[in-house]
Amino acid sequence: MAVTYELIKRCPQTGARAGRLHTPHGVFDTPMFMPVGTQATVKAMSPDELKAMGAGIILSNTYHLYLRPGADLVAEAGGLHRFMNWDRGILTDSGGFQVFSLGPLRKITEDGVNFRSHIDGSKHFLSPEKATEIQMALGADIIMAFDECVPYPAEHDYARLSTERTTRWAERCKQAHTRKDQALFGIVQGGMYKDLRSQSVRDLIALDFPGYAVGGLSVGEPKPLMYELLEHTAPQLPENKPRYLMGVGTPDCLVEGVMHGIDMFDCVFPTRVARNGTAMTSRGRLVVKNAEFARDFTPVDTECGCYTCRNFSRAYVRHLLKTEEIFGLRLTTIHNLHFLLDFMKKMRQAIIENRFVAFREEFLANYRLS
Amino acid sequence: MAVTYELIKRCPQTGARAGRLHTPHGVFDTPMFMPVGTQATVKAMSPDELKAMGAGIILSNTYHLYLRPGADLVAEAGGLHRFMNWDRGILTDSGGFQVFSLGPLRKITEDGVNFRSHIDGSKHFLSPEKATEIQMALGADIIMAFDECVPYPAEHDYARLSTERTTRWAERCKQAHTRKDQALFGIVQGGMYKDLRSQSVRDLIALDFPGYAVGGLSVGEPKPLMYELLEHTAPQLPENKPRYLMGVGTPDCLVEGVMHGIDMFDCVFPTRVARNGTAMTSRGRLVVKNAEFARDFTPVDTECGCYTCRNFSRAYVRHLLKTEEIFGLRLTTIHNLHFLLDFMKKMRQAIIENRFVAFREEFLANYRLS
Ligand SMILES: [Zn+2]
Ligand SMILES: [Zn+2]
Repeated sequence: MAVTYELIKRCPQTGARAGRLHTPHGVFDTPMFMPVGTQATVKAMSPDELKAMGAGIILSNTYHLYLRPGADLVAEAGGLHRFMNWDRGILTDSGGFQVFSLGPLRKITEDGVNFRSHIDGSKHFLSPEKATEIQMALGADIIMAFDECVPYPAEHDYARLSTERTTRWAERCKQAHTRKDQALFGIVQGGMYKDLRSQSVRDLIALDFPGYAVGGLSVGEPKPLMYELLEHTAPQLPENKPRYLMGVGTPDCLVEGVMHGIDMFDCVFPTRVARNGTAMTSRGRLVVKNAEFARDFTPVDTECGCYTCRNFSRAYVRHLLKTEEIFGLRLTTIHNLHFLLDFMKKMRQAIIENRFVAFREEFLANYRLS
Repeated sequence: MAVTYELIKRCPQTGARAGRLHTPHGVFDTPMFMPVGTQATVKAMSPDELKAMGAGIILSNTYHLYLRPGADLVAEAGGLHRFMNWDRGILTDSGGFQVFSLGPLRKITEDGVNFRSHIDGSKHFLSPEKATEIQMALGADIIMAFDECVPYPAEHDYARLSTERTTRWAERCKQAHTRKDQALFGIVQGGMYKDLRSQSVRDLIALDFPGYAVGGLSVGEPKPLMYELLEHTAPQLPENKPRYLMGVGTPDCLVEGVMHGIDMFDCVFPTRVARNGTAMTSRGRLVVKNAEFARDFTPVDTECGCYTCRNFSRAYVRHLLKTEEIFGLRLTTIHNLHFLLDFMKKMRQAIIENRFVAFREEFLANYRLS
C-alpha cells in the first residue's frame, strides 16, 4: 500500500491519537495540519520555508491545476512534486468542492458534472473517472474520491440521494484508480444527518479505502452541530487507517477534531487571514494591521519562535501591510502556518504524554474566540 | 570618517576600478549594485535572501519612509537597520528625486520644496535641513544631499541655475549634518552640459564630501549622451572617494559605468521588471511570462546559479506569474538581483585580473539590447 497509518499512542480519556503516516514522499507525524497550495504553491511561501516550519504534507487543488497549467503539463514536468520542487507529501482534492461551489454554472448528472471555468467561462466536464485520471497525472501521494459536498442546510432527501451518489462515485473512482504509488481516500458525506453519516461510513468501509476523509462539515453550520456530527462519525472509521477532516483550520476546531480522533486537517484560513493582516495566536486573533500596533516594537506573538517573531516587530509588519508590501504577506503567512503546525506538534506531544485533556482545557481557557 | 573607500586595483586601459567600502555596517566590495528597498523592504525579498545573493548595501527612499511609517517611528524602532532587520549597509536618498518628479504638485524656492503627498494629498515641505534631519533619524550609513535632478531636456540657463542651487543646498546639508556614524555624499548635477558638470564637481569637491554621486543621468537621454557625460564627469572626481551613479541598473549601462570608474549603482529596474515577468540574463532579457515557455522545463537561465534557477523551471515560474502567485514574483526577483550582483562580482574579478577590457567586449558581443 502506498500510504499506511501507524498508531503511536491513544488518549485514554478521548478519541485523540498520535500517529505517523508513511507516504511515498516521506513520513510525517499526526495529527498534522496540511497547508493549502491551491495552484501548486502555498501562497507567498517557498518549499524551504514550509519545510523549516515542519510541514510534512501540503494540499493542492485539482480543479485549479486542471484549468491552469493543465494536468498534462504537470505530468510532462514529471509530476506535481517535481513541478513545484516539493519532495514531501502532497494530497490533491478531487475538484468536486470547487466544481459544486460554482453554483448556477454547473449541472449534475449521475455521470458527472458539467461546469464552466471561473477564469474564462469555457465548458468542462468532471466525473469520478476524469477526476481520478487528472489526479493520477498530477501524481500526489494521496488523492481524493470525487464527491458532492452536501450543502448546509439540506433536506434529508437531498442529502440522502447526494450521499448515495457520492458512494457510487467513490466506487467508480476506485475502479479508475490504477497508480500503485498513490493512495485513494474515500470521503464520508451525509450532511448533518447521523443516519446518513453512518450509512456513508459503512458503504465506504465496504469499499476498503486506505484512508477516509470526513467531508461536508465546516460548511456554515454552527460549531456545536459540527462537533456533534464529528463525535458521531469519526469513531466509526477504522482504527488502522488515517482520518482526515476537510476544510478545518482554526485552533478551536482543530483541538476538537483531534479529540475525536482526526489525524489530518487542511484549511485556507491561516494563509488567507494572514494576507488580510491577521495573526493567529494561542490567545486568539491579532489584527496586526490595526493602528494600535503602529509603534508596538514587540513581536507579533511573544510566545512564538517563528522567523517573523524572531526577527521583526508588530510595527514593522504593520508598516509592510499598510504599504502593501509582499514581504508583509510573507511574514504573516509564515507566522500563521508556523503557529498552526506548532500547535499540532504540541497536541501530539500532549497525547503522547497522557495529558491531552488538560492541554485542551488550558487552551480553551486562554483562547478568545473572535 | 564613517565611510572610507579603499582602492584595490585599477584597470590599466580604462577608468574601471575594484575597491572596498568600509561602513559602520560592514565592508563591501566595489563595484557594487545596491538593490532598492523603497519602503524599508526590497520588494518581495527577505533580508536573508539578499544576504545569500551577496548584497552588501541596499538603498531606501527618504520620501516614502518620511510619509510612511514616518522618520520618528523608524527612529523610535532603533533606526532603519533595526526596524527592517538588516545589519549590512544602507544608503538613503534625499527625497529630492521623488519630490521633484511629483510635477505640478510641487513648488520650488531657494529655501526648499513645497509638495503634496502622493498618498493623501497632504501638504509637506522638504529643504536641505529637513531632508538631512529625516535621514539622520532614519540612520542609514550613507545619506545624500538634497538636490534637484535637472530634467531632460533642459535649457542651459535652467540647468545652470538649478545646479548652482543644488550646490548651495549641498552646503546647507553639510552644515545640518551632525551624525558622525553616517556619511553625507554630495550629488553632481549639471544636466547634459559639460561645463556645468565640471563646475558642479569643482564646487562639491571644495565642500569636501566623503563620497560623490553622479545624478541627473539616465533620465531619458540617449545612452551615448549619458556615456559621454559620464566619461567627462567621473574622472574629475577624487580617486580616494567612492563614486555612485544614481538610477542605473541595466547590464549594458553598468559595464559602461564601471569602465568610467563608478563604484556604486542603484536602480529599481531589476526588481520592477521581475514583477512584470521579465528575467535578466547575460544574453539579454527573457520574458518568462511568454507562451513559448509554457512547456519549457529548463531553468530561467542555464548559466545562473541562483535559488530560482537551481530549483525551478521556466514552465513553473511562468505558471506562477500567469496565476498571479506571489512566489512567482519572489522567484523572478531573486533571479534578477542575483544575476546583477553576480555580474558586478564578475566585473570586479575581471578588473583584478587585468582583463576588464576583454570582459566588456565579450559581454557586449553576447548581450542583445531590447
Ligand atoms: Zn510567529
Ligand atoms: Zn537565476
